[in-house]
Amino acid sequence: MLSAVERKIEQFVADLNDKHVSSLYMKLPKGKRLRAKLILKIAGTGLSVVKTAAIVEMIHAASLLHDDVIDDAHTRRSKPSLNAIYGNKTAIMLGDILYSKGFFELNNISADVAKIISNAVTQLSLGELKDVSLSQVFNDNKEIYLEMIYQKTASLIEASAGAAALLAGKPKEIYMIYGRNLGLAFQMIDDLLDITSDSTTLGKPALHDFAEGKTTLPYIYLYEALDEQSKQKLRSLHGRMLNAKEQTWILEQMQQHLIVEKSYLEAKKLIEEAIELMEQQGEKALSGIAKEMIERDF
Amino acid sequence: MLSAVERKIEQFVADLNDKHVSSLYMKLPKGKRLRAKLILKIAGTGLSVVKTAAIVEMIHAASLLHDDVIDDAHTRRSKPSLNAIYGNKTAIMLGDILYSKGFFELNNISADVAKIISNAVTQLSLGELKDVSLSQVFNDNKEIYLEMIYQKTASLIEASAGAAALLAGKPKEIYMIYGRNLGLAFQMIDDLLDITSDSTTLGKPALHDFAEGKTTLPYIYLYEALDEQSKQKLRSLHGRMLNAKEQTWILEQMQQHLIVEKSYLEAKKLIEEAIELMEQQGEKALSGIAKEMIERDF
Repeated sequence: MLSAVERKIEQFVADLNDKHVSSLYMKLPKGKRLRAKLILKIAGTGLSVVKTAAIVEMIHAASLLHDDVIDDAHTRRSKPSLNAIYGNKTAIMLGDILYSKGFFELNNISADVAKIISNAVTQLSLGELKDVSLSQVFNDNKEIYLEMIYQKTASLIEASAGAAALLAGKPKEIYMIYGRNLGLAFQMIDDLLDITSDSTTLGKPALHDFAEGKTTLPYIYLYEALDEQSKQKLRSLHGRMLNAKEQTWILEQMQQHLIVEKSYLEAKKLIEEAIELMEQQGEKALSGIAKEMIERDF
Repeated sequence: MLSAVERKIEQFVADLNDKHVSSLYMKLPKGKRLRAKLILKIAGTGLSVVKTAAIVEMIHAASLLHDDVIDDAHTRRSKPSLNAIYGNKTAIMLGDILYSKGFFELNNISADVAKIISNAVTQLSLGELKDVSLSQVFNDNKEIYLEMIYQKTASLIEASAGAAALLAGKPKEIYMIYGRNLGLAFQMIDDLLDITSDSTTLGKPALHDFAEGKTTLPYIYLYEALDEQSKQKLRSLHGRMLNAKEQTWILEQMQQHLIVEKSYLEAKKLIEEAIELMEQQGEKALSGIAKEMIERDF
């Protein structure tokens, strides 16, 4: 039924009656459509459900367009990003067009669904801004990191699950916890991959996040574990290009203090809670999605 | 009653519970609040009306934040623009935050009001994108120019008037024509000011628009009036920095062919229609706003 969602997005874009925008949209990568999948699994395949899934994916695509401008990203899913090919101006405006068309269409669903989704967009924008601000400093506060990734990544997944539950007449709060945990774990694992997976060019982890000033969970845990002198050293490496020796030092410290394991367990705990909630509801497909996430390659 | 609108916007921003965002919002220029004024004049000062006016001004502020990034503008109302001080990233995200909070709050008004406003945001984003694309070529098509300024500038003013009429139980279509004409005339006059008003540093008109590739109405009319050889010359000057001699040539040609007068009359005709519609409705204050617009200094 994901194809029905794709067709609905194409129809929404065609409604705009602007050839330039249609051709730009066709060039965007489709992605995994995780949010649409969750919505369909929770609420079935009625017209309102398909529309809601299409709206959420349009909104997600808009947020990625702006995210890539914010991060000066030149690739998205291993292909050149839209801002890299057509410039930031086009990416910003296409984002605004997809956002506003999404909000317009939400008014054809229900005020409750519209509120839950539009609130999530505010949260994700607040989260993006916080992500940028936090990267200016060495953030060693886990609560602040968790709030930021909740806003930036988990809020729209939580809202997708909540909106779908509303449409299906299922208990909203339970599904929102499921979505929230899934989103938090997804971001934590994404942050871990920056430390554990080899970059194709160097054959070793890139540690991009730390160079960009982002102290993700593993860095916060590492900082907590280090003695005073090493703490200072880690701070001195923050937010700049690292040479091979400096990268190796960080990776060795992480190994020594079992930081990857500790961070992974934190994500796993969230996923296990999500799985349990869904199994209590008899939602096999949804617990399956959660299981797949923790089994991502890293 | 504009102060009630200001307080409502401040409350909406405070709802976000983010000190950084509150402090950024405080630094934005307030502007003339034209859209809020129209809404209050049409629909009175009930809570839904004040909320709608506040939402529209938040949305307008968001569009200006993105507009300044798109245009690489370093000033806004003679002060450094937010993107100039805090960077494009902050300006893009603050725009997204204000947009989404605005859309969220629209759900507390009515679905009809929410649709009319969110549709206008799509139109203005489509218009901005068209403005950028059109500046890549020498556009000599008046219809395309009019469609672009309708989308970019008139659509949100039209929607503000329409939403207010809905709230007040007044005939929506008449008020929307009024708003549309006001918006078109506003943009036409703004485009004329780039040609008629002396820039403070040079003591003569800047002709920024043409240098940026924008062939506004006066350039389209001038092009129509010129002979083949001068047409080619005008094309050759398009989209680049002009020296004093080139600027003077353009201004002389405009004078010779009475282009400013012709363009001004086009704006005036729209305003006169707007005034007449409002006088038929007994809306003195609204016809007054239209009159003021055509008497802008230029």
